[in-house]
Amino acid sequence: MRVLGVDPGLTRCGLGVVDAMPGRRVRLVEVGVARSDAGEDPARRLVAIEAEVEAWLDRHAPDAVAVERVFAQHNVRTVMGTAQVSGVVMAAAARRGVPVALHTPSEVKAAVTGSGRADKAQVTSMVTRILELDARPTPADAADALALAICHLWRPAGGGVGAQRGGGRTAAQHAWAAAEAAARRSAR
Amino acid sequence: MRVLGVDPGLTRCGLGVVDAMPGRRVRLVEVGVARSDAGEDPARRLVAIEAEVEAWLDRHAPDAVAVERVFAQHNVRTVMGTAQVSGVVMAAAARRGVPVALHTPSEVKAAVTGSGRADKAQVTSMVTRILELDARPTPADAADALALAICHLWRPAGGGVGAQRGGGRTAAQHAWAAAEAAARRSAR
Repeated sequence: MRVLGVDPGLTRCGLGVVDAMPGRRVRLVEVGVARSDAGEDPARRLVAIEAEVEAWLDRHAPDAVAVERVFAQHNVRTVMGTAQVSGVVMAAAARRGVPVALHTPSEVKAAVTGSGRADKAQVTSMVTRILELDARPTPADAADALALAICHLWRPAGGGVGAQRGGGRTAAQHAWAAAEAAARRSAR
Repeated sequence: MRVLGVDPGLTRCGLGVVDAMPGRRVRLVEVGVARSDAGEDPARRLVAIEAEVEAWLDRHAPDAVAVERVFAQHNVRTVMGTAQVSGVVMAAAARRGVPVALHTPSEVKAAVTGSGRADKAQVTSMVTRILELDARPTPADAADALALAICHLWRPAGGGVGAQRGGGRTAAQHAWAAAEAAARRSAR
């Protein structure tokens, strides 16, 4: 299972591809950012981001695309551009028959840090540990895209949030355990 | 000059094509609504709307596409879907090299009724008169799409709102004059 995570944005759109490995481990495939020029026409900016996302879809043929769900109460100045990018990305994936899932920021934070109220630094730190990377992915949009992909891979089999409550380890607990094991390995 | 006006929406996306004629008159080419099924997956809904818009772009080869500018303070429940549709429509036009213009609801209302605070019924009524239609276009989304196209055709040559203030008749005044002339003709 391979997931392309997308943190939508008009100036910087985070992109991260992650593969699921045996035993709930995950592996980084590629991480980066699609950019568009703030001085450009808005419609052309959308096309520039779309072209980059299409190139990633071609290159990696993901089994699913996980996009951050945008809320109206986000930064009002930029939220419309962000929502437009999310629409373009969702359509690009669906045109190819790739399933699209939307995850809220708190779902993503909970999946990788264990807390839905974690800050950006915590998310970046956990993504770095979970994927056993030598350096933190930058900018934050790139780390968020990886977190989205991990969140999608670790979602409960039933798909619902409720399924996490059934006892046993949650995805976040697995994340912590795996990250701690990785940290112990790298400390040796 | 031919303009495709688009009133973006996920359940109903209004589409209207209008041609500019000599003497500031305008002519209806086609009006309709692209729909998507509320029970469908959101990404597939975007693709359904996109396919319909692409068909209209193919059929009418407009010189410009005029899209309603979506604001975050609109209906919060539906605004994200509306913004996503606007992004998909803008990208579809820009991919073909068709210029995209965004007009605010109050610009559109002012252009066709003379008042930026006109209600939907006034807009529909004026669109019906301006285009000399036998019946009101329905639903309201279809009338709004025509109003957007008319607004774009009647925008000041300088492109800025300020250009309307330079004396002489404003576009809205022209609209009233033309509509009144049409009403007089049809009353005979």
